Amino acid sequence: MGYTAAVAGASGYAGGEVLRLLLGHPEIEVGAATAGGNAGNRLGEVQPHLLPLADRVLQETTADSLAGHDLVFLALPHGRSAAVAEQLGDGTVVVDCGADFRLADPAAWESFYGTPHAGTWPYGLPELPGARERLRTARRIAVPGCYPTAGTLALFPAFAAGLAEPDAVIVAASGTSGAGKAPKPHLLGSEVMGSATAYGVGGTHRHTPEFAQNLSAVAGAPVTVSFTPVLVPMARGILATCTAPLRPGVTAAAVRDAYQSAFAAEPFVHLLPEGTWPATSMTLGANTALVQVAVDEAAGRLVAVAAIDNLTKGTAGGAVQSANLALGLPETTGLPVSAVAP
Amino acid sequence: MGYTAAVAGASGYAGGEVLRLLLGHPEIEVGAATAGGNAGNRLGEVQPHLLPLADRVLQETTADSLAGHDLVFLALPHGRSAAVAEQLGDGTVVVDCGADFRLADPAAWESFYGTPHAGTWPYGLPELPGARERLRTARRIAVPGCYPTAGTLALFPAFAAGLAEPDAVIVAASGTSGAGKAPKPHLLGSEVMGSATAYGVGGTHRHTPEFAQNLSAVAGAPVTVSFTPVLVPMARGILATCTAPLRPGVTAAAVRDAYQSAFAAEPFVHLLPEGTWPATSMTLGANTALVQVAVDEAAGRLVAVAAIDNLTKGTAGGAVQSANLALGLPETTGLPVSAVAP
Amino acid sequence: MGYTAAVAGASGYAGGEVLRLLLGHPEIEVGAATAGGNAGNRLGEVQPHLLPLADRVLQETTADSLAGHDLVFLALPHGRSAAVAEQLGDGTVVVDCGADFRLADPAAWESFYGTPHAGTWPYGLPELPGARERLRTARRIAVPGCYPTAGTLALFPAFAAGLAEPDAVIVAASGTSGAGKAPKPHLLGSEVMGSATAYGVGGTHRHTPEFAQNLSAVAGAPVTVSFTPVLVPMARGILATCTAPLRPGVTAAAVRDAYQSAFAAEPFVHLLPEGTWPATSMTLGANTALVQVAVDEAAGRLVAVAAIDNLTKGTAGGAVQSANLALGLPETTGLPVSAVAP
Amino acid sequence: MGYTAAVAGASGYAGGEVLRLLLGHPEIEVGAATAGGNAGNRLGEVQPHLLPLADRVLQETTADSLAGHDLVFLALPHGRSAAVAEQLGDGTVVVDCGADFRLADPAAWESFYGTPHAGTWPYGLPELPGARERLRTARRIAVPGCYPTAGTLALFPAFAAGLAEPDAVIVAASGTSGAGKAPKPHLLGSEVMGSATAYGVGGTHRHTPEFAQNLSAVAGAPVTVSFTPVLVPMARGILATCTAPLRPGVTAAAVRDAYQSAFAAEPFVHLLPEGTWPATSMTLGANTALVQVAVDEAAGRLVAVAAIDNLTKGTAGGAVQSANLALGLPETTGLPVSAVAP
Repeated sequence: MGYTAAVAGASGYAGGEVLRLLLGHPEIEVGAATAGGNAGNRLGEVQPHLLPLADRVLQETTADSLAGHDLVFLALPHGRSAAVAEQLGDGTVVVDCGADFRLADPAAWESFYGTPHAGTWPYGLPELPGARERLRTARRIAVPGCYPTAGTLALFPAFAAGLAEPDAVIVAASGTSGAGKAPKPHLLGSEVMGSATAYGVGGTHRHTPEFAQNLSAVAGAPVTVSFTPVLVPMARGILATCTAPLRPGVTAAAVRDAYQSAFAAEPFVHLLPEGTWPATSMTLGANTALVQVAVDEAAGRLVAVAAIDNLTKGTAGGAVQSANLALGLPETTGLPVSAVAP
Repeated sequence: MGYTAAVAGASGYAGGEVLRLLLGHPEIEVGAATAGGNAGNRLGEVQPHLLPLADRVLQETTADSLAGHDLVFLALPHGRSAAVAEQLGDGTVVVDCGADFRLADPAAWESFYGTPHAGTWPYGLPELPGARERLRTARRIAVPGCYPTAGTLALFPAFAAGLAEPDAVIVAASGTSGAGKAPKPHLLGSEVMGSATAYGVGGTHRHTPEFAQNLSAVAGAPVTVSFTPVLVPMARGILATCTAPLRPGVTAAAVRDAYQSAFAAEPFVHLLPEGTWPATSMTLGANTALVQVAVDEAAGRLVAVAAIDNLTKGTAGGAVQSANLALGLPETTGLPVSAVAP
Repeated sequence: MGYTAAVAGASGYAGGEVLRLLLGHPEIEVGAATAGGNAGNRLGEVQPHLLPLADRVLQETTADSLAGHDLVFLALPHGRSAAVAEQLGDGTVVVDCGADFRLADPAAWESFYGTPHAGTWPYGLPELPGARERLRTARRIAVPGCYPTAGTLALFPAFAAGLAEPDAVIVAASGTSGAGKAPKPHLLGSEVMGSATAYGVGGTHRHTPEFAQNLSAVAGAPVTVSFTPVLVPMARGILATCTAPLRPGVTAAAVRDAYQSAFAAEPFVHLLPEGTWPATSMTLGANTALVQVAVDEAAGRLVAVAAIDNLTKGTAGGAVQSANLALGLPETTGLPVSAVAP
Repeated sequence: MGYTAAVAGASGYAGGEVLRLLLGHPEIEVGAATAGGNAGNRLGEVQPHLLPLADRVLQETTADSLAGHDLVFLALPHGRSAAVAEQLGDGTVVVDCGADFRLADPAAWESFYGTPHAGTWPYGLPELPGARERLRTARRIAVPGCYPTAGTLALFPAFAAGLAEPDAVIVAASGTSGAGKAPKPHLLGSEVMGSATAYGVGGTHRHTPEFAQNLSAVAGAPVTVSFTPVLVPMARGILATCTAPLRPGVTAAAVRDAYQSAFAAEPFVHLLPEGTWPATSMTLGANTALVQVAVDEAAGRLVAVAAIDNLTKGTAGGAVQSANLALGLPETTGLPVSAVAP
């Protein structure tokens, strides 16, 4: 094991998934696991699925407990990462699973999060044009939001190739783990089983400006995004259905070519054979994204669908993938590409 | 009990739901219950939740077994209704839960169903402008598809009031009962639990032309529709997320006014208070549709969401609602407005 | 409508189900709906599935708000019913959905609940020998626990007929709504979906002495009960698997006869045809219990299985059934016998 | 990679799980993947979650296609293994995930399976006394049934230590994947979601004699077993609740000691800290079994609960664990001990 990693926020879902992946990582050893209210408890009490760590005791999340690791993963509530990160020197690679450093535009940040903008770190979606190179030298990494991971992977090839008008509509079904582990009435099993519900409708979800930032960057011009998240009865998974108007003269063959080129060399993103559509179960626990695209001639639209596991490729897996790059390891080290199904 | 009703296709999900509702209907008595392969079996074997009918024996679906009722509900596979209906005289009100008589355009029918067009019957969505009046004198009724019921209710007020550009995007999450009771591998519990998947992407789902027909009629001009259904892990329910570009100068207040006017007098469609969003569990087993609408200023779009139970308001409840009108009964007779939740 | 009913605890799952059933009851009108922390809120905010009551405002749970009704349903946390009930005169029928008045033995109460015993009210399981007659004159009714409803119905015919040794083992799978609406981490959708877990193992669940009380009474001698509840990923439903050693010489035919006799005249309890087994979906939203029994010759045991909806027959439906008796109404008035399935 | 393995029945759930585990195994390479009706199809069509094998083509299950591997895993319908196995020489380790060679008693086999007994192979539950040693030299291995894996692990320490009377009651909740991938109406998602149901009640399930064989062997005397499986709405997981009467004078401390001793050195079986109970989600995708035990003084019983993933420890993981032993590899090679949760 060449490296050690601390995980801050190890009692939550994102932190737990980082730990799960690190336990399978041949080059990174789990160091400190820290928490807030759960500090002092055994990990076995809060993450009973991680048997090898059952007897580890959660430490308090402080600069001291996180110091001395090659790598620190932050899985903290929004707004808490900056204070921790600034106490960690540049010798440490800091990977923030929270939102704090994702947005480049301070106005967008303040409008959606209501707090001062903390800054902008290299964006941890290696599949975006140019991102992989930036991540290889990064000491600070902002892990994308789970919805933007799915929706951006589904649509960026179309915008990068100039195939679509800059007016995206994204509706994404998500499992409940994305909402975290803090108990709230609408997240009770009794409420979510057997029910689908929309939330954050009308462009109010905090991932909306992140979508726009990603797609505008590849399009080279502002892309408007209408984003609606839908909570569905499953613990994990995001299925993003994404559409934009086709530019005049764009053929289905051109669309397919663009997607094939975009993903041909990607180890984790897979364009499905024509006519088959992704299901989130095909990605459960894996760092993969499955994508498919179709052209709807009658509606004059391109429709792309992406499935990911929101906790793996959508959070912790994406975090480890970017960390691998930053450490100079092969990008795929320790990351599962087979899912647990059925 | 003033009337008797036969149910053809009583062993399936739609037929079972018609029976469930008729058992609670004070003016309609259940007559013949017929089936194909299940003829000769007790209803208790195939619909064990309908205790009062457990010892009824399913008859063969023939003109003879269906004759002599005031009302016949057809819940047959697509393409089978015409042959049955033409043997039933005009003294019988025939309500077709299948697709056969929904579309007015023979070309659209043939393109999506691949068989000759059987004709067009009055469309059983009483909430559409003018529909209620037509249904009061109808002897033949085409029950809308489950997805078009949800999506049309979500969007028609916007198009009827001229608030939106004729370019709708509809993504609808659905429970598995809409896919019927015939066992297929991708519908196994092991496959659908914990997974969301899109299908019929790119405008190929058969409900696409029905959406376009409905919305174009209220808009008074062709509306293009991009429709994507998404299968999610629940047995019942449709949550349709629907969006269209706002016309210039349209305000959020104007949108809300249009929706309030459209539904103010409706017994089954309920516009939620601002800021709350429908969940399908709020409609389980009820003939209700819950709708909410928002304006996304940044994206220049109206976003409307509707929740229904696909088997109740989306099929059997809608069928009974229209049948009530055709029989001259109060429209709400025997139809539940409280859902079973949690 | 001959009667009015108040519901205390109307914001919870049990209270919500009482309201749902009363909305369909032809002889009882909903009066005050009261709550604790939710007092002052619209019912539409906490029970959005009950459209007809959406604009009702929840009152504070006090003797004043509950006074003046023919009937009061208490759906309060354990230990709260006595103080409320003693302020309601004998002119009011009080039906307690809580545990406070279920147990006759003060020592058993104190051992399992840790508070002083409040007393014992007539037990609202009309299917038990002699119970129906007692309920017809009762002014105070203790509604059985959800698990004891299922397990007692499954086993009492065997003990009443002297067919089994007094050593019962009951393992009951339950949906999550039985655990209530207060948000706790282990009840989050993310935790319960895709998982089954036992709790209260080793005879510590509070329903254990209630089982023993019921079965001992019909057996005429003490019956020991090993009870294990299992939480499974569904919102509603209890499936109780119950077994006891067969007494020497007891035949399968004698067992079947005993069960047929026990349930032949029961409107809500149905013995399934031989070889078919109950599923909880067959009872969803209905006041029914489906029972089946088998003899395992090799193990020398009788095995009985009962399915109910924990909120309907297991709580609110059982409450209304007993209230019907106390009011002198036909026992089945207003109670659904068809379930919502699939 | 030192070894190659073929998988017969690679299109089913058990075969797919064997493949998933082999993909993560550092010493075994996937060789032929064979099927019946799916021969000729790409693995990506039937096991889309196994991306690394997506373009592999399924071969026909024949002696030829399976020949030449160090290891052959059979995941075939019951009754098909013998014909295949006898064509594979003793140089090949054959691991049968089916039932064919599990039972030692031909009469028990014929009574429960209705076909001639094929024989008896070493039983692949290394945790049983003496089993590990036998498996190290085995060339043929019978993988235990999923239910017997869970129930035997829960109860064998009690019987091995002479703590319990030989009269076990086992009720086990199972996910639907145990029923396989062949589409049947009662396994449809619409039927299983939101519902729990018992089946094989009264000692008729085929795993009943396997339980009795295992427990009798450790007890050194016949143990009767009452076994009831319960289907619950999840894809994976078995939660077995198991009870037997305590022998006179046995204390809770003695019980805990016996369980601690039994599992202290086991890499995959974990006795939880007192007072916490296993959930199947804690084992999803892992080769682990979590066990807890309690003493119910009032009922005079020991109650033990075990959670496993039916496809991993309950089938494919158990198969690989035994194969590791037979190949002389460390028993834990390539087997996950962290689960995918939530």
